Order: sequence, then structure tokens, then C-alpha cells
Amino acid sequence: MSYVSPGKGYSRDSRYLTTRITADGRDGYRVEPGRYRLVVSRACPWASRAVIVRRLLGLEEALPMAVAGPVHDERSWTFDLDPGRRDPVLGIERLRDAYLARDPGYDRGITVPAVVDVPSGKVVTNDVPRITLDMALEWTPYHRPGAPALYPPALRPEIDAVNEVVYRDVNNAVYEAGFAGTQEAYADAYARLFARLDRLSARLERSRYLVGDGITEADVRLFTTLVRFDAVYHGHFKCNRQKLAEMPVLWAYARDLFQTPGFGDTVDFEHIKRHYYLVHDDINPTGIVPAGPDTAGWLAPHGREALGGRPFGDGTAPGPVAPGEAVPAGHTPLA
Amino acid sequence: MSYVSPGKGYSRDSRYLTTRITADGRDGYRVEPGRYRLVVSRACPWASRAVIVRRLLGLEEALPMAVAGPVHDERSWTFDLDPGRRDPVLGIERLRDAYLARDPGYDRGITVPAVVDVPSGKVVTNDVPRITLDMALEWTPYHRPGAPALYPPALRPEIDAVNEVVYRDVNNAVYEAGFAGTQEAYADAYARLFARLDRLSARLERSRYLVGDGITEADVRLFTTLVRFDAVYHGHFKCNRQKLAEMPVLWAYARDLFQTPGFGDTVDFEHIKRHYYLVHDDINPTGIVPAGPDTAGWLAPHGREALGGRPFGDGTAPGPVAPGEAVPAGHTPLA
Repeated sequence: MSYVSPGKGYSRDSRYLTTRITADGRDGYRVEPGRYRLVVSRACPWASRAVIVRRLLGLEEALPMAVAGPVHDERSWTFDLDPGRRDPVLGIERLRDAYLARDPGYDRGITVPAVVDVPSGKVVTNDVPRITLDMALEWTPYHRPGAPALYPPALRPEIDAVNEVVYRDVNNAVYEAGFAGTQEAYADAYARLFARLDRLSARLERSRYLVGDGITEADVRLFTTLVRFDAVYHGHFKCNRQKLAEMPVLWAYARDLFQTPGFGDTVDFEHIKRHYYLVHDDINPTGIVPAGPDTAGWLAPHGREALGGRPFGDGTAPGPVAPGEAVPAGHTPLA
Repeated sequence: MSYVSPGKGYSRDSRYLTTRITADGRDGYRVEPGRYRLVVSRACPWASRAVIVRRLLGLEEALPMAVAGPVHDERSWTFDLDPGRRDPVLGIERLRDAYLARDPGYDRGITVPAVVDVPSGKVVTNDVPRITLDMALEWTPYHRPGAPALYPPALRPEIDAVNEVVYRDVNNAVYEAGFAGTQEAYADAYARLFARLDRLSARLERSRYLVGDGITEADVRLFTTLVRFDAVYHGHFKCNRQKLAEMPVLWAYARDLFQTPGFGDTVDFEHIKRHYYLVHDDINPTGIVPAGPDTAGWLAPHGREALGGRPFGDGTAPGPVAPGEAVPAGHTPLA
């Protein structure tokens, strides 16, 4: 599979299927418990946003989840973790089939997260930034009691502003560094990434969370990149000025979230490493998956409680991970 | 160039030219000041042993040095840093020419360090482990006043024992990890490497140097791997349980040596990174050279003086770097 274009920088294809699932069903897809299936990979930072938000909001029953295997082939993410290598609800082996059901001529990325309409078998949306916001805003009748406000009206302008620079300089910049086809494109991404991490570190030195005094969508989006930093971005993507573990404020911030129910308990380090190191064979042609890093440090005390803040605002922490959704022991330091 | 054999572990070709340059000239090559030329690359850990030992012993005038460029082609290290891309003394563009002068049918590795007999233009030896020992034992009339005893008779059994396990589990194991053609070969090298580093760390916790109370050949051999650890072995070779900078005892030990005249002042981090990331194109096909890691930490206080020890034994530290031999500013945190 080809991720790097020699002589060129990396450019993400962000032409998503932007159909929305809403309370009023204005795009033809109304919020209904059990009607849709959230397809994710635990390897993918974009899908992991949805995994975390779903759990923080308690949408496990209303919006069931299908977890694809970490390694996909040239055409598709596949359900190779399931019995018979087939998603038991959608009845398909490859996520691609749900994209083609939506549009037989679909020729863009077969990406996760994707929300599939179970009755028709069609992908409704793979619009990453919208999916989690709609989970927060449109699915409210099905939120658990005590679900936090991840995108509260008063904070939206600030959350949007943070998300914009975090996307450009962190979430996407690590890919621009890793898939750079020129030294200049790499150097540009690396410089933006670490300059932004320095600014985020300064911001988080006196504030437990990015915006306001509780967890918001902004924290979810930064977390999914930070939790992959030392496992894959540092070495595989050459984002190596320091490890996250060498940036004390960001490392404590990331550990704080990791240890918060809904974050670390969704993270599968084995899926993350296997995905990046096996799928990107143009930057890791040997297919050797590193044994490190040691992930025990994620459980070390972080001391961030001293900064105050209320993780879930007026709400509460989510309960235990839903049956059947636990990350396997050995894939996480938590187990 | 091919370093990895898919499906196989990495096996170093250690069939060296074992002719020795000795005080009695028993192999036909007598120690004589100015007669030989030590060809090195500052990128290479094996050559760097000789660069360090030469400087510790003050052999700069007696045994002049040629520094090859960091990036070689399939056939040879080249003198592309020199005016006209030609070594001014040997008059050749490629080290290969000196190997072929020795043996027109030479078909093994064109390796550094190599010691070339200037009058004949022939490589005398590229026998890595022997070259530094002979510099210590055979070149004594030309040692500087105050040169340390790097291989003192009373300590030889212990130095040899340490060198043997350090070679197997550290110096060579990083290559076995990086060039592994199977996951199993990688895992084996990784396990041996970090188990050994843990044991070395325990040994060095109460002892400033590896053997005895001063710097010996054993420290030189461990240092040249440690100084490359975070720059290339951690990411490029996937030796990533921790960075050296995350192993406190070994990191302080390595910094102590780095800050000792004769060690850090020979290290060119740009040559190291360019060599590994550009030459091993089967594990880094994009040829992108990482911008990190930040090397400023090498100058941080190490606190190892508290362990006692006498770095140079009854001798003294070497003076300033010889004219023309300084590592360029920008390639080292020292400048």
C-alpha cells in the first residue's frame, strides 16, 4: 500500500460522506437506538475519538459498535476479529461492502469511524469531526444519567479554535511527518508539531483540561494522538524531538486522561502498533512490529488533581466497560 | 542496498583482514609514525572506537586519520568530504580502492575502521577488536605523556569478559534487532539487549566505570553504542523499550563519558543520523532523516563524580581536539 508520494508532502483526503444522523432526521437518518452500527478500529486515532465519546456518554446500547481488526488490506478494513471473520450484525467481511452498498461507484477512502445503517447495510457517514459532535448533541435522549457535556454551548468557540489548531499541528501533522515524501515536508510538519506541543504544554501547565474546567471534545481529540505518540508516532513517524514521556506536562495530562474511565480503557496498544507497523509497508517494509515501548508508565500517578477541575462537570464517570468490549489483557497496562 | 534478509536473522560478516601492525613488525607491518592512515567514518560505532582511543592516547600525529563521508554507496565508503572528493594523502576517492590494492579479488565488506599502509596504498587491517587494542599495546612509544592505560594487564580478563557480552548483547544486538528479517529474530535481539542493559545498569550504579576505577577499552566499546542509542537505535532499529535518556544510570554514565575529553568531542550526530537513515534504504525507503532527538541533554550534569574513580588513572585528560579534526558546530551539542 502506498502512503508516501516521493517528492511530495502528504495530503489527507477529507472528502467524507457528510450525511448526518440527527434528532429530526433531516438528512433521512433519524437518531434511533439500535438502528445504527458504529464501525471502528482501536488502532485508528480518528475512530478512537468516537469509541471514547460513545463510552463517556453511555451510548453503548443505543449505538452498538463493531471493531475491525488492526490490519487491513489494500481495499478495506476487515472484521477478522469476529467469528467466521464476519461482523455478526452487518453480516459482511469487509467494511468496504457497506461503502459500496451506499454507493456502488464509491472510490474514496474506506475509513473508520463509519456509521452504518443496519437495515439497509449502507454507510451513512464517515465524517470524523461531525460524528462525535452529533453523538454529543443529537443523541442526548440516549445519554446515560450523568453524561458529561462534551461540547457545551458556552465553550464551543474556544473548543472549535483549539480543535482547529490541534488538528492541523498535532492530529494531522504526525501523519504529514510520517508520510512525508520530501525532507522539507517532514521538517515543516515536525516544526509545527513540536511548536504546538510546546504551546499546549504551557496552556496545560496551570489548567487540568484544555477548555473550561472539565473534559470536552477538545481533550478527546488531543488524547487520541498523545496516547499513540510513543508507541508509533515517535519512531515510525519520526516525531522524535522528545517522547511524550519526556514532556512532563503533556505526559501528566495524557496519563490523567488515560486513567479516567472512558479513555485508557478503550486503548489497545497492540492494535495500534500492529496497524501502523504492518499496514504502512512503504515506511516499514520489513513488517517487524517493535516490542516497546514499555506502557507501564501510563499508570503512574500524575498529580493533576492538584490543578482542580471537575472531569465530568456536573456529571459522573462512566461505569465499567460494557460486556464484550474490554480490551484484551496484554494489550493494555490496565488489565 | 540490502541489509535485511526476509525470513532470516541478521548475521554480521566478521571475516576481517587480521594482519597486525606491531612494534616488532612480525606481520610485515611495523609501528612507524606517519606510515599508516586510519580511515574512519564518524557515523560508524566500530570506527568510532578507534577515533576515541586514538585521541585518548594522543596518537593524532603518529597515526593520521581520514574521515569518510557519512553516506556510502553500494560499493564503498567514499572521501566525499575532502576537496575534490579524494583523500589528500591516499589520493583515492573510495576506500574500496585500498581494499582492492591489498587484494584485487577482495569480495567482503568495505568496512571502517581500516588502517592503510600509505606507501603501498593497501589496507593492512580492518580487524575492529584488534585495532584499538594494538593502539594501546603496540604504539606505546608514540602515546602522549599522560595517556591512560586502556587495557592494563591486571584487568584484561575482566575487560575481555565484559567486552564479550557487550558485543553480543549490545554492540551487535542492536543491529540484529534493526536488520531482523523475522519477528522472532527481532524479539530475541531485543530481549537480550534490554536484559543486558539492565545488568549493566546495575553494575554501573555503584561503579563509575565498567572495569576498575578508570576508563578502559570496555567503556569505549559500550559508549559508541550508547551514544547512538536515542539518535538511531531507538527508532530506526526499534530498540524501543526505553530511550537511553529514560534509563537513569546508563544515561548518566554515557553523559559522563560524553563530557570527558576524547569521547563527546569525537561524536558527529549529523553523520550518525544521515548514515543510518540514508544508507539502510531497505528499512527506511523514504530516506527521510529525523530532525530529533534533541541532543542538548548530553551536556546536563551527571553527578557521577560522586562515585569516585579516576577517569585517566595515573594519567591525564587529552588536550584540545587536533587542528582540522573538530566536529562541525551544529553536528554536536558541544560546539
